[in-house]
Amino acid sequence: MRAVIRRAGKLICDEIVERDPGPGQVRVKTLACGICGSDLHALHYLDHMVDMARRAGGGEGLNPAADIVFGHEFCAEILENGPGGGRFKEGTRVVSMPVNLGPEGFDAVGYSNKYAGGFAERMILTDALLLEVPNGLPTDQAALTEPMAVGAHAVASAALDKTSVALVIGCGPVGLAVIAALKVKGHGPIIAADFSPRRRAAAEAMGADVVVDPATTGPHSKWSEYGVPSTLAGMQTALFSGQTYGRPVVFECVGAPGVLQSVIEGCPPKAQIIVAGVCMQSDSIEPSLAINKQLDLRFVLGYQPDEFAQSLFDIAEGRIDVTPLITGTVGLDGVAAAFETLGDPETSVKILVAPNG
Amino acid sequence: MRAVIRRAGKLICDEIVERDPGPGQVRVKTLACGICGSDLHALHYLDHMVDMARRAGGGEGLNPAADIVFGHEFCAEILENGPGGGRFKEGTRVVSMPVNLGPEGFDAVGYSNKYAGGFAERMILTDALLLEVPNGLPTDQAALTEPMAVGAHAVASAALDKTSVALVIGCGPVGLAVIAALKVKGHGPIIAADFSPRRRAAAEAMGADVVVDPATTGPHSKWSEYGVPSTLAGMQTALFSGQTYGRPVVFECVGAPGVLQSVIEGCPPKAQIIVAGVCMQSDSIEPSLAINKQLDLRFVLGYQPDEFAQSLFDIAEGRIDVTPLITGTVGLDGVAAAFETLGDPETSVKILVAPNG
Repeated sequence: MRAVIRRAGKLICDEIVERDPGPGQVRVKTLACGICGSDLHALHYLDHMVDMARRAGGGEGLNPAADIVFGHEFCAEILENGPGGGRFKEGTRVVSMPVNLGPEGFDAVGYSNKYAGGFAERMILTDALLLEVPNGLPTDQAALTEPMAVGAHAVASAALDKTSVALVIGCGPVGLAVIAALKVKGHGPIIAADFSPRRRAAAEAMGADVVVDPATTGPHSKWSEYGVPSTLAGMQTALFSGQTYGRPVVFECVGAPGVLQSVIEGCPPKAQIIVAGVCMQSDSIEPSLAINKQLDLRFVLGYQPDEFAQSLFDIAEGRIDVTPLITGTVGLDGVAAAFETLGDPETSVKILVAPNG
Repeated sequence: MRAVIRRAGKLICDEIVERDPGPGQVRVKTLACGICGSDLHALHYLDHMVDMARRAGGGEGLNPAADIVFGHEFCAEILENGPGGGRFKEGTRVVSMPVNLGPEGFDAVGYSNKYAGGFAERMILTDALLLEVPNGLPTDQAALTEPMAVGAHAVASAALDKTSVALVIGCGPVGLAVIAALKVKGHGPIIAADFSPRRRAAAEAMGADVVVDPATTGPHSKWSEYGVPSTLAGMQTALFSGQTYGRPVVFECVGAPGVLQSVIEGCPPKAQIIVAGVCMQSDSIEPSLAINKQLDLRFVLGYQPDEFAQSLFDIAEGRIDVTPLITGTVGLDGVAAAFETLGDPETSVKILVAPNG
């Protein structure tokens, strides 16, 4: 079958040998698969990503020097159940967490030398993890389940009060998913910050109450407008005057060096910082400033199965509108160029790949 | 009255002008006051400490260029109530959070140009914040209420499960207070790490279940002995085999550059890291490693009034034995030398100052 293959740090479009589904597995036709920021990073820095996963005591399954077919944000159609059958009929549209479970244990889908990801015409998935796409939800929207689940998990990881004001730093797909997850849980107000007008517009479309351009307005200048004291002295005054406010929460969805320290500098005392942006470089912080402010930093990754399923239902029931994120679709031949395009935040937010045209 | 004064970065013993208690205040005779690690740091780096507090939006009250009398871990005796009287009779022994409340707002005791701390013969305190020393508790032990409250707050800030294994990095007074607070809450096992044999012995006396010398044994090598998987792969195996374990917690009680990153490197996935050691320099971490491990970093400072009171009662009721911490007592003339002595962890843990002999 045809696939886009990462080989020696480049993306090439070529034929690959196809696996057959084993017991408990299914063969699916890939209908749509999003390009993730992690894919952009992994194209050039996969060695480093794998090294980091290994240092955390995982990542043993992936050899960055061997061929890999990326793609872990997909919607697909059942072609064939493996030996012993499966829960769904041929033709059923499904989504799945990008994981295969089997007698050999876990394998990633999209970051694996064994299983092709969604930038291939067909994939092998695990029957037990499939979720049928409900409500006639369009394929393109169903493919956004995975990135939306990332936002749902980040929000679920935060200790939000009913009246917590949330600041979302960075309005790429992760930041936008966080905004959507905050809205669906009824949280707000939401302040969103991004240098790109295109992405600020997307943030508004996803439900941000106010958007700021950090080039002209400090993202942290907005706290006081929502009644959140931004200094220790202000916090004491509020305490003594009986003023109450929800615990402020910052979602760091950029993942570049210096952003975390800028949040530590700017955020209110006792804020919670959810770090969802993946900064691959070493980064410098001032712990004593974080201690003076009594900050809480939670580094989050991925999602739980229930968060993944809930995200699908939230999209299908119309509680989350993902259409503002989808800015283009390409075939397999267009993937390499789309990786380039996605480097410019003004041009696009989420590009989908349709491997079968 | 006589006091030890920080003047131009040096400690000198001299006479100072004494304030009189205002309404709601009392004059006390200082019986004993501990020397804190913060005092050691503040002697040389007060400018930096004040700058850090100001950047957090506080610390306006302190001019590092003017005279300061340190000392915020004290037990004292009531000499005189201010105009309007107070709750306690002359001669009553009391402890207090090191704060004065008044019409002008908050003032620190021990980090103030206005109110002398406990390295003075007498202090002005606030009646409403005084706690009477119960049970005939010896003065020296009552003076340990404040540092014990720091440990109580660090432990209260952790989301400990019943079966959480705790690792305490650094067994100075903060680490020892954390160990005491863990024990009093019934938590364990507790692994404690320190390069100093003297401090490892103190950790054992305070209730650590196992102590390690990081020079020969990696502190994180002990997790698996207590059934806590130390890798992502191990965590997955535990999940699938139904093995359960409490969320691991690391208390970082050193506060030197590099320690936080070493904890991020070594700790188990999904660990919670309570940062109680105050690292005054910029420090480097790898956020993507913290993300891979889904770590939770809480930067903690100080304590709540209830934690302070509970620490006093825990000491007075014999639930916390602070005697292993007390390694010496000096008069005002001996304070400057004691600051030097405390630089060597082998020589001492907590030195008390008895300003009235």
